[in-house]
Amino acid sequence: MASTRKRNSLASWNDGAAKSQILDFVARVTQQNGPDFVPLAERIAVFDNDGTLWCEQPLFVQAFFLIDRARELAGKDPTLKERQPFKALLDQDLKTLMGFGKQALLELVFTTHSGMREEEFDPIARGWLAKAKHPKLGRLFRECTYQPQLELLNLLRLNGFKSYIVSGGGIDFIRACSEEFYGIPREQVIGSSNKLRFEASGGRAGLMKLGELNSFDDREAKPQNIALHVGRRPILAFGNSDGDLPMLRYTRSGKGPRLALLLHHDDAEREVAYDREFRLSPLNEALEKADAHGITVVSMKRDWNVVFPTVS
Amino acid sequence: MASTRKRNSLASWNDGAAKSQILDFVARVTQQNGPDFVPLAERIAVFDNDGTLWCEQPLFVQAFFLIDRARELAGKDPTLKERQPFKALLDQDLKTLMGFGKQALLELVFTTHSGMREEEFDPIARGWLAKAKHPKLGRLFRECTYQPQLELLNLLRLNGFKSYIVSGGGIDFIRACSEEFYGIPREQVIGSSNKLRFEASGGRAGLMKLGELNSFDDREAKPQNIALHVGRRPILAFGNSDGDLPMLRYTRSGKGPRLALLLHHDDAEREVAYDREFRLSPLNEALEKADAHGITVVSMKRDWNVVFPTVS
Repeated sequence: MASTRKRNSLASWNDGAAKSQILDFVARVTQQNGPDFVPLAERIAVFDNDGTLWCEQPLFVQAFFLIDRARELAGKDPTLKERQPFKALLDQDLKTLMGFGKQALLELVFTTHSGMREEEFDPIARGWLAKAKHPKLGRLFRECTYQPQLELLNLLRLNGFKSYIVSGGGIDFIRACSEEFYGIPREQVIGSSNKLRFEASGGRAGLMKLGELNSFDDREAKPQNIALHVGRRPILAFGNSDGDLPMLRYTRSGKGPRLALLLHHDDAEREVAYDREFRLSPLNEALEKADAHGITVVSMKRDWNVVFPTVS
Repeated sequence: MASTRKRNSLASWNDGAAKSQILDFVARVTQQNGPDFVPLAERIAVFDNDGTLWCEQPLFVQAFFLIDRARELAGKDPTLKERQPFKALLDQDLKTLMGFGKQALLELVFTTHSGMREEEFDPIARGWLAKAKHPKLGRLFRECTYQPQLELLNLLRLNGFKSYIVSGGGIDFIRACSEEFYGIPREQVIGSSNKLRFEASGGRAGLMKLGELNSFDDREAKPQNIALHVGRRPILAFGNSDGDLPMLRYTRSGKGPRLALLLHHDDAEREVAYDREFRLSPLNEALEKADAHGITVVSMKRDWNVVFPTVS
């Protein structure tokens, strides 16, 4: 039986159960005429973004973007400095920010960019991502992606998988960097979205971003949005929090070969050791029930020999 | 300057303005180093389905599917025969059905399949599409696709375009045939959608179809859903009714080379001659204002030398 599997190194992954399961899974689904062969069109993989493909501590990258946007807005309207939630943003008051919760922070992003034409947002986000640095790691946010995940995305691509990002973060923010950072085209990004208003007059027609939430792509919404955007149940899913649990279970319980992976941030030296105490996006139930649901836990400390890409 | 354009025949298209514009457009956007070159990733084309890629007269194909489903349901519950809207469906009372309107018919489809698991719908639709025949044309619905459009889709594919279906019809119904009929993968189908409920217990997790509408993908919703699913403004759009006008204007008014096409059903001999009087999906404003909006009208009678594929 000929294998169509393309080999790749996963050099940043240590030998162990997680790496073996990934390599074994890719081998089985690409083994032509094998019992677990999956046709090309059905090789769909889904990845959470914050905390799965790049660092989410001490705050989501998009929250730092929001802080910088709030600074700009406060420059034009100084009264914002005394008004919540802008005050907490400008003071980088993490405790207060955490209290708002993930959805409220997201809605604040959408409010901040409402009344903007669809195409205007992309260059703003790109411009920021090209220059902004992580306050603790001291490296560009684009260099806060996880090297082992870049290798996994590449391995999957070489083996005919189509990988989607399925994130609670704003869809347009992720689309501004997905091709460049991860090699994932814009149309393979699913995320939280704001509503849009169609406006046309004469020879011009376009979409205006509104502050109102369209979809908060977290928990149950993740499988729902996968069905809407992709229309196929994925065969591989990778997440890192309880917000990913429905997507992991949805993927894992399909017929045929399936692989569900959960990243555990247990590496205080090279990144941050945390799980349930990250109030914006806790890992609690998913970790407890991983075994019962057939989810493979990936330990950052044990399974990865490198965390971040080498900065040139 | 080398051209990466792949030639193809468009054999069913007569020489004329429409064919020339299509060939010229494809030549320009694929001409490397040319002033109108468009990178591969941005070659997005969008096609309406009913009346643009296949026949929509005297009713949408999905309405005939609904009629057959209603018959099955009435077999189990004979009281349906006397209740509207099932009575009109079972009597094939077109006038009454038209009166319901497009969205109401669609909601009826969704209601008919509510409480079904996501994966159960596909084989039902596929099974029906494999056997059901058009009542007037006497050919399988799968043979009611338009041959010139199959050639156009193929020409675009050969030239690196990614074509999406953007339809007011039900997304799952179109996904059941898009790969086989048009060579368009499921994830490149955007359509009207019902809400889904995530259900999980033990080792099983999945999505249940609900009767409630999520998005009615018509008029302004078409560009809104293109932005949501694709995240890029298309460079080519093809429609046939006022419901497609926002998508055509959205496409046409982007920067750089753009092509917007509108099919006019003016061929009573080979298909049906109609426009504004088709109450479910009239062509009125789009035809009147085509010139003003830079939209190219394609005449079925004049521009196509063949309408339907040869049945073997």
